[in-house]
Amino acid sequence: MKGTMRAVRKIRLEPGFDLVKVEIPQIQPNEVLVKIAATALCGSDVHFYTWDEFAQKRIKPPVTIGHEFCGEVVEVGNAVREYKLGDYVTADSHIVCGTCDVCKLGLQHICQNLKIFGNDVEGSYAEYIAVPETSLWRLSRDVPTAVGAVMEPLGGATQAVLIEPVTAKSVVIFGDGPIALFGAGVAAAAGARKVYLVGMVASRLEIARRMGANVTFNINDPLDPVKAILEDTHGIGADVVVEMAGAPQSMKNAFAVVRKGGRVTTFGLTPKPIEFDINFAVTLRQVTVRGVAGRHMWDTWKLADGLLASGKLDPRPVITHELPLEEFDKGFKLMTTGARDTGKVILRP
Amino acid sequence: MKGTMRAVRKIRLEPGFDLVKVEIPQIQPNEVLVKIAATALCGSDVHFYTWDEFAQKRIKPPVTIGHEFCGEVVEVGNAVREYKLGDYVTADSHIVCGTCDVCKLGLQHICQNLKIFGNDVEGSYAEYIAVPETSLWRLSRDVPTAVGAVMEPLGGATQAVLIEPVTAKSVVIFGDGPIALFGAGVAAAAGARKVYLVGMVASRLEIARRMGANVTFNINDPLDPVKAILEDTHGIGADVVVEMAGAPQSMKNAFAVVRKGGRVTTFGLTPKPIEFDINFAVTLRQVTVRGVAGRHMWDTWKLADGLLASGKLDPRPVITHELPLEEFDKGFKLMTTGARDTGKVILRP
Amino acid sequence: MKGTMRAVRKIRLEPGFDLVKVEIPQIQPNEVLVKIAATALCGSDVHFYTWDEFAQKRIKPPVTIGHEFCGEVVEVGNAVREYKLGDYVTADSHIVCGTCDVCKLGLQHICQNLKIFGNDVEGSYAEYIAVPETSLWRLSRDVPTAVGAVMEPLGGATQAVLIEPVTAKSVVIFGDGPIALFGAGVAAAAGARKVYLVGMVASRLEIARRMGANVTFNINDPLDPVKAILEDTHGIGADVVVEMAGAPQSMKNAFAVVRKGGRVTTFGLTPKPIEFDINFAVTLRQVTVRGVAGRHMWDTWKLADGLLASGKLDPRPVITHELPLEEFDKGFKLMTTGARDTGKVILRP
Amino acid sequence: MKGTMRAVRKIRLEPGFDLVKVEIPQIQPNEVLVKIAATALCGSDVHFYTWDEFAQKRIKPPVTIGHEFCGEVVEVGNAVREYKLGDYVTADSHIVCGTCDVCKLGLQHICQNLKIFGNDVEGSYAEYIAVPETSLWRLSRDVPTAVGAVMEPLGGATQAVLIEPVTAKSVVIFGDGPIALFGAGVAAAAGARKVYLVGMVASRLEIARRMGANVTFNINDPLDPVKAILEDTHGIGADVVVEMAGAPQSMKNAFAVVRKGGRVTTFGLTPKPIEFDINFAVTLRQVTVRGVAGRHMWDTWKLADGLLASGKLDPRPVITHELPLEEFDKGFKLMTTGARDTGKVILRP
Repeated sequence: MKGTMRAVRKIRLEPGFDLVKVEIPQIQPNEVLVKIAATALCGSDVHFYTWDEFAQKRIKPPVTIGHEFCGEVVEVGNAVREYKLGDYVTADSHIVCGTCDVCKLGLQHICQNLKIFGNDVEGSYAEYIAVPETSLWRLSRDVPTAVGAVMEPLGGATQAVLIEPVTAKSVVIFGDGPIALFGAGVAAAAGARKVYLVGMVASRLEIARRMGANVTFNINDPLDPVKAILEDTHGIGADVVVEMAGAPQSMKNAFAVVRKGGRVTTFGLTPKPIEFDINFAVTLRQVTVRGVAGRHMWDTWKLADGLLASGKLDPRPVITHELPLEEFDKGFKLMTTGARDTGKVILRP
Repeated sequence: MKGTMRAVRKIRLEPGFDLVKVEIPQIQPNEVLVKIAATALCGSDVHFYTWDEFAQKRIKPPVTIGHEFCGEVVEVGNAVREYKLGDYVTADSHIVCGTCDVCKLGLQHICQNLKIFGNDVEGSYAEYIAVPETSLWRLSRDVPTAVGAVMEPLGGATQAVLIEPVTAKSVVIFGDGPIALFGAGVAAAAGARKVYLVGMVASRLEIARRMGANVTFNINDPLDPVKAILEDTHGIGADVVVEMAGAPQSMKNAFAVVRKGGRVTTFGLTPKPIEFDINFAVTLRQVTVRGVAGRHMWDTWKLADGLLASGKLDPRPVITHELPLEEFDKGFKLMTTGARDTGKVILRP
Repeated sequence: MKGTMRAVRKIRLEPGFDLVKVEIPQIQPNEVLVKIAATALCGSDVHFYTWDEFAQKRIKPPVTIGHEFCGEVVEVGNAVREYKLGDYVTADSHIVCGTCDVCKLGLQHICQNLKIFGNDVEGSYAEYIAVPETSLWRLSRDVPTAVGAVMEPLGGATQAVLIEPVTAKSVVIFGDGPIALFGAGVAAAAGARKVYLVGMVASRLEIARRMGANVTFNINDPLDPVKAILEDTHGIGADVVVEMAGAPQSMKNAFAVVRKGGRVTTFGLTPKPIEFDINFAVTLRQVTVRGVAGRHMWDTWKLADGLLASGKLDPRPVITHELPLEEFDKGFKLMTTGARDTGKVILRP
Repeated sequence: MKGTMRAVRKIRLEPGFDLVKVEIPQIQPNEVLVKIAATALCGSDVHFYTWDEFAQKRIKPPVTIGHEFCGEVVEVGNAVREYKLGDYVTADSHIVCGTCDVCKLGLQHICQNLKIFGNDVEGSYAEYIAVPETSLWRLSRDVPTAVGAVMEPLGGATQAVLIEPVTAKSVVIFGDGPIALFGAGVAAAAGARKVYLVGMVASRLEIARRMGANVTFNINDPLDPVKAILEDTHGIGADVVVEMAGAPQSMKNAFAVVRKGGRVTTFGLTPKPIEFDINFAVTLRQVTVRGVAGRHMWDTWKLADGLLASGKLDPRPVITHELPLEEFDKGFKLMTTGARDTGKVILRP
């Protein structure tokens, strides 16, 4: 497709992004062009916005930011097989090679030749994006575009919670960021016995309850969540614990509250190494720890898709703001300056 | 405990049971005495009632019938460790040895020295029953006694549906007997993508929908369920199929509707051997078949317990009749003579 | 690469193949050209040779036959990422799309857009073959070319035997064709408690024992293998049974000899539907049946590769003949006319 | 059985044990009396011998020490079902209740009412021991008594290594104590791609190689095992790592050498909490950690039994000393004072 489009790009080697006119991407034979209906802000994009050390190492401006999106296929490369004009799609943020040793182990999402939209190639804070067929995922028309835009982080939550079954099990989630809130919804939809969520912002705990958490704890309250959950489980502890806060205390609590033979999923990243009594935490109590980063392609997508189709999972309470693309700056300010009530923010190009 | 009690027993070597006075069972050191709050009629008891060939081989009258029940612990043997007076309990219908080779393989429920309440030892159609500690399961006070009485068949449904995860998957259940109806509830509570149930009695299909089935088919209607489900899954077929009808056509349909790489659980018993194109049904399409009879002790109980606690599974719509113990005869007539609308029948001693 | 090469092709619509000169294949950007070191005859190619009904429906001559091979990369397309000149490689016989729904379920080997070398595209009974990178598998130089040529059928055996763990378990294999013989080797290498193989050709049973089978049965002998194995397992039966003969009696025996809670893998294809007492075979004894056709890409390859690297699996006893490409006709005669002693036949271009 | 027997007991509240005459144990109805053929010294018994703080808290003298043994059934309680006079048996060291919540989760080996032979009840450093049927395991007459005596620690090694399949996978074992050496044998017997063992005593590394380790490293040598293994796996790392040394550096190395998506089993106990970069070690590389303490009853026993029956595992190289019961003091001195060459020590009553 010819012509220009609006795009939010990292151009200057300093804080902030710029809304500019650029050429509409020209697709390769194995790609489609997607007209973006909605795109979501991700915590990782905040690094590029504030231009911290991580950002300076990670990307080479100029580049259009953004990797969570959905939209309609408006142009189809001639080597594309399964998609056609008018298809409603989203995509994994990862472009994988499919042929390296890690991909062949079934771990495409940590592919050795990995590229990420809005990092290594042009992203989704724009009117159009070119996407290789191997990264596309078809959406049902029943999925609202606001939901389509957050399928990627919802996939992360799905992977973390469902990496082993949670049906009929007690589940504790540490953290109240958007992925943790999605996680509460996933656990509830999957028929968890009881979903506990431990966070620190009252409005987010309210969202957690709307997502299906049965009990929420605010770490600023005097009640000790570990003690309360142990009591509620007759001293045995929770079957499954998902750590999504990344705080050292939270990581410690995760292992204190899991039962003998239970499972801890680590998803949050701790700011620095932590001291760890691995004997009690893991060995003597036969705990399983499952590290999770990203989403399996494509079985986790299939799970998230199925949960949405079931009608038992609705991620919309987590989406607290929708803005036109032009107000991207407001969006990032919501995510940075004291805006603790912000859940997921969506831009509409 | 001393004294007599009312009990429904098989005494005469002919159709029917008798309500008689017998001694309250004397417990062994490893047993408790349970005062029965509710006991449920099982299809297998119908054989003893009608006194068919199977029944004549299986039991040696006189014996009190019944193996699905719940109640309160009113006497505790001195070798019992984990239960005390006043505990609210149910039991697996199986008394297992725990030491034979099959038990040591983790398959206690098909123990080589298996005894069954109401078959090999005195059963639950009575005011009291003696139960060894190894068969007991503690109930939460939140579980109504009507539900407590059907935990055992609910466990069968749970085992059949959840022997592999169903969260986010499409599930087809063939059959509309009580266990199939429970199964629809289990699949829905576990967050199945969509639950289809294929039956033959309109009132039971109505119960299926109340239990959470999204779509029901009546085989007496012109619409072909296999064709309809294939269409609804874009020609791919269902992820999981649970055969609980035991009819040859139903078994055939089960394999016709499962997707490549999907799972079929066989639970229903066919009246005679069936002809089977195992190449297409299983081998070429990489289908997994899981035979299920009974419930794993105790992981399946833990699952059923967790689903009830989640509030997402309520088996009560399946319970269509509650009668006093004295009306046992009416109960069995409901289950035999044309009473196609009968779900689960409960007796109150 | 320019020039001509020798190739064994199906040209005439009648029995037999022809050795002819053809152009060396021109590679696409995503392909490499492999100089074939060895290529193996497969039972499925016999259909094309005899030109039976299946063959007439399956392929459109002219086409070079053959899909089991290994060799050296002598030309590399410019979109190829992980392979370079001189690499020693083999390939899955399947060319998969990677984007259809079945591929996205992780079942690439039954991809909806599947193409097979020597069936749908030019095959390996030739000096050179063009292979897309997505079908390539790198071999260690420690793997002899005779073994490299049979990695694909060895993968089938690996998939069938190891689809669930066999370490420390008793394993019965029905069949004595090459894949069954490979299967015995896989089970032994994986530390099976005991490997039983049931066949019908004395020389093949001798190969089975060289591959690691502890006990072999010839169905032409008076000793009943089912009875003997049941006796040897104290009446309990075998943990794992792999049916690779496809004979109705063998299928029946498979279910007769598996233990309660055990696993049957079906791999052999029966000539017609069989009558089946699914109650006893599967349901009441809680048997798991796993249909297997082909190899998972790429986890099964990783397993076969690891077994070869362990030094505990050596498939060479199964390779009974090596011939120059010119003698392809002799090879197919060995596989068809009464040559019951033939294992795997390899051609050297 | 009446009469007296020799027994090595903890009597005095100070270092050392005493060999004394005591009454032969009187069995309960659910117990058998075993005439001990061989009993093995365990590292945990060294605590009782040296009478350290742990020991002073753990046991209440007087008590006969010892929990690893085998022998013949010479008396059978009248409630015992599956064992008879003359049976050749060993036992799990654990006496479990079978009815607590943890047992009902299938985790009998960490039962809430756990008792251990030679700790809580009379042990095996004696001529006879009383064993409840629920702790017994039948041995094949093919198993030498020296091997029968070490089935319990061999079970620990089996559990740690085989908690997930290792067939065709690269396995690194850290540690060269008896259980680590058994572990190398288990991994090799199960068809591991390659077994690496990292230890510190040359004679034990020699035993490791006899047990099937392909490569051993001595941490006192200049070669860095982590670097060497990474190099040998083309920079990818090992599929499975089993930490059995309990040293902080070893624990750190375990996570440095495991591949993305791989598995670490923790079995060794660290002397104190360790600092841990859980982001890199677990989360970002999607590692699974499986804590293992003890053996599952009875599936792990079944595995160890099957490996012995396969002929592929022979634990005897690890047994470095056999002594008469009278020389128990020499045995413990071998295990404590500088006897770094000591593997497993067996006493013969």
